[in-house]
Amino acid sequence: MNSGVGSMGAMDPLAALRASADLYINPDAREDARRDASLLLSTATPGTVPEAVHHYYGLLPLEADPASPAGAPRSSTGGPPSVVYKAVSTDDGRGYALRRYLGAPPARGDAIVASVEAWKRIRHPGVVALREAFTSRAFAPARSAMPPANELVFAYELHPRAETLRAALQAPPHLSSLHAVDGPLSEAAVWSLTTQLLTAVAAVHAANLVLRTALSPDAVLVTGRHRVRIGRLAEADAFDADGGALGHAASTARLAALQREDLGNLGRLLGALVNRGPAAGAADAGRRAPELTRLVSLLVGGSARTTVTDVLSFIAPRLAAESAAVWSHADATQAVLHQEYDASRLLRLSSLLGFINERADDASAATGGNAAWSETADRYLLKLFRDYVFHQVDADGRPLLDYGHVMECLSRLDVGSPETVLLSSRDGAALILASYAELQRCLRTSLEDLRMRANAHSM
Amino acid sequence: MNSGVGSMGAMDPLAALRASADLYINPDAREDARRDASLLLSTATPGTVPEAVHHYYGLLPLEADPASPAGAPRSSTGGPPSVVYKAVSTDDGRGYALRRYLGAPPARGDAIVASVEAWKRIRHPGVVALREAFTSRAFAPARSAMPPANELVFAYELHPRAETLRAALQAPPHLSSLHAVDGPLSEAAVWSLTTQLLTAVAAVHAANLVLRTALSPDAVLVTGRHRVRIGRLAEADAFDADGGALGHAASTARLAALQREDLGNLGRLLGALVNRGPAAGAADAGRRAPELTRLVSLLVGGSARTTVTDVLSFIAPRLAAESAAVWSHADATQAVLHQEYDASRLLRLSSLLGFINERADDASAATGGNAAWSETADRYLLKLFRDYVFHQVDADGRPLLDYGHVMECLSRLDVGSPETVLLSSRDGAALILASYAELQRCLRTSLEDLRMRANAHSM
Repeated sequence: MNSGVGSMGAMDPLAALRASADLYINPDAREDARRDASLLLSTATPGTVPEAVHHYYGLLPLEADPASPAGAPRSSTGGPPSVVYKAVSTDDGRGYALRRYLGAPPARGDAIVASVEAWKRIRHPGVVALREAFTSRAFAPARSAMPPANELVFAYELHPRAETLRAALQAPPHLSSLHAVDGPLSEAAVWSLTTQLLTAVAAVHAANLVLRTALSPDAVLVTGRHRVRIGRLAEADAFDADGGALGHAASTARLAALQREDLGNLGRLLGALVNRGPAAGAADAGRRAPELTRLVSLLVGGSARTTVTDVLSFIAPRLAAESAAVWSHADATQAVLHQEYDASRLLRLSSLLGFINERADDASAATGGNAAWSETADRYLLKLFRDYVFHQVDADGRPLLDYGHVMECLSRLDVGSPETVLLSSRDGAALILASYAELQRCLRTSLEDLRMRANAHSM
Repeated sequence: MNSGVGSMGAMDPLAALRASADLYINPDAREDARRDASLLLSTATPGTVPEAVHHYYGLLPLEADPASPAGAPRSSTGGPPSVVYKAVSTDDGRGYALRRYLGAPPARGDAIVASVEAWKRIRHPGVVALREAFTSRAFAPARSAMPPANELVFAYELHPRAETLRAALQAPPHLSSLHAVDGPLSEAAVWSLTTQLLTAVAAVHAANLVLRTALSPDAVLVTGRHRVRIGRLAEADAFDADGGALGHAASTARLAALQREDLGNLGRLLGALVNRGPAAGAADAGRRAPELTRLVSLLVGGSARTTVTDVLSFIAPRLAAESAAVWSHADATQAVLHQEYDASRLLRLSSLLGFINERADDASAATGGNAAWSETADRYLLKLFRDYVFHQVDADGRPLLDYGHVMECLSRLDVGSPETVLLSSRDGAALILASYAELQRCLRTSLEDLRMRANAHSM
């Protein structure tokens, strides 16, 4: 419905976003909101997915089915093949990403439960939050001869427009959310991605956990412009062949060694970012960004005792710059939000008018015997006001579709301005001068009237 | 108009904000947006302020007049008494804070100009941005016997709900934006304020400038919940008695010494924060937050060669945590913004319906001779849909005022869902089954019809 009536005027958030020096600006935020809302309502062809899995419904596959010929290769996280669905929870109505591992899970259920409990506590803007893991037979084909496998499913918060870091790095620059609108990945952007990942690693290590295969280009998600999150938490632990090495239960020395491996994996990820693609080597990077290259060396090649805290101190001035950049982004978003608050206040007002205008007589008759409720007294003024707001015509009687006029009238009604408006009856015989304050009072009493009747005992 | 009809359901942003671990959550953001908009429209009693100063109009004093008996004491930044006005620029329609120094400025105009140019380039979320400085005779009393003084005025970006750090620290906890809703300033909050100020100092020092008196509780502003900005940039330079020591023109050694003094002043500010009030000493702080106390010692008492970069490395893990906290805040704000985008899309749709429903016959007659345009064909379906959306009644004929129902119907119309809705004529004689996709088509063609007539030559 991009029908483009009138001007959006001061409601356009892009002007505010463009005016800010915002690394994370998303010029399509309004359209993205619409697509996110529509993804949540989308479902698969009936019969191709279960109607419900646990407390989730509205399933829609988000990747190709690995069982089909065009399917994804075997999971890089070391587990069996898996497939991801969008789903909505009946608990909270929010969207989730369900990763279902095909076939029977490893038999170490208690270890998986303990690991999942530890990972559920990791809430950080640099990770995709894990909500829960469970097993389900719901995906089994209805007519299968085999008894259905009790498959392992991980439920994560949904990031509707996410793509893997690998896909983002391989996409052409103009299609990738990793790249600037007018060029390749800038050094400032790489530093931002670096600090997002590094602070997430710090939070995970502080909880005595290790990320392992979650620090791969297939598990890290790009969830917005210059915005990354480490995904697939807890999966590596569940499919770990080394039963005793689960991060949450490892010995101190084993944990330190695994965490040092995480830093190496992070270094390789950053190397790929510096080189704009995971296949390239580190040979050319030094000339482009010497400080970044030193960081990659520290991560990949530094001492065996290097910890994430050492790395944070090493890049402290960059952390300060990133913190400032994120504040600028948050402030710009807040400014746009304030404009939108104005808009939603007016939507509400418009709906309230809708409750009253032209309300049919039979509803009135059923409750109070008032023959033409919506045509008399306060309601008549509101009807004329509705005509004034929405049914403007020019001097020749042609319709004027002026969205700005609608916004202006509703804004004045919202604050109950003392300004007056000249309302005309439809036959033009009567002219009524009313202030917005008076119209606001009419609206309030009419709504009270309606609400009283809504609460009345039936007759 | 807090008339509270029905439930705001999924549109309520507070639920989303409460669900996030957001240190900067502002539960009154919606009301603040309204008050900010209204401050911008407020003006002083005519005759008490100039109608225009430079390209600024709509002046309103934001502090007591220092010339009046209840006025503020002499400026702590070392200059003459000053007074602050809110104003709006004719250049961009945005709000600004004008700080006017009473009386003639120091005669070193060229030094002030050079300093102001340097400060204008500092754009950082931890400072109040300086837009410009100028001199003006506009404030002189009309009937004064003296020739009007050419007074110095600094124009800063406006933060409508700002208070000085001194005022915030002295306010009772439940009234101060520095304190948690249910208790005193938490250690996490002090660390956040610390990193906000410290990263701003780093940006200023990197530009070879010094803050001097701007690092005082009278110049630092609290602009939101747990949100501070260093204000009054450039003012200390303008009124500096030591003519050769302006930050932007100082020798390297002098600059380093002044920057070290800035760190000491920052340390004293943080000490005041740790102690919840600027008057208290540092005696008790150690027990409460040992790491913060070590930082204050480093700033106030450390080596004469300590730089802001040393301090950043010292608190690197805190910088990482702050960066994550700000991302969480930005993400939560973004989520609320997406909900508001949904609301504004539906407001638009509601307005489009308003353009069509009940449009009077005389408008139709004047343009096409179509006797009952809004009652026939596609428009009739839209009229019945309007009844369905806004005029629901229960089994006993009582009005149902369900805001959630309105939102749901408009959302489905917005995406043109294949779902169907059973529409009933007002006499109940006819029932029509229509899909939202079909209703969306009706809306589009009706609008095209209206727009065609709007563009038609008059008859």
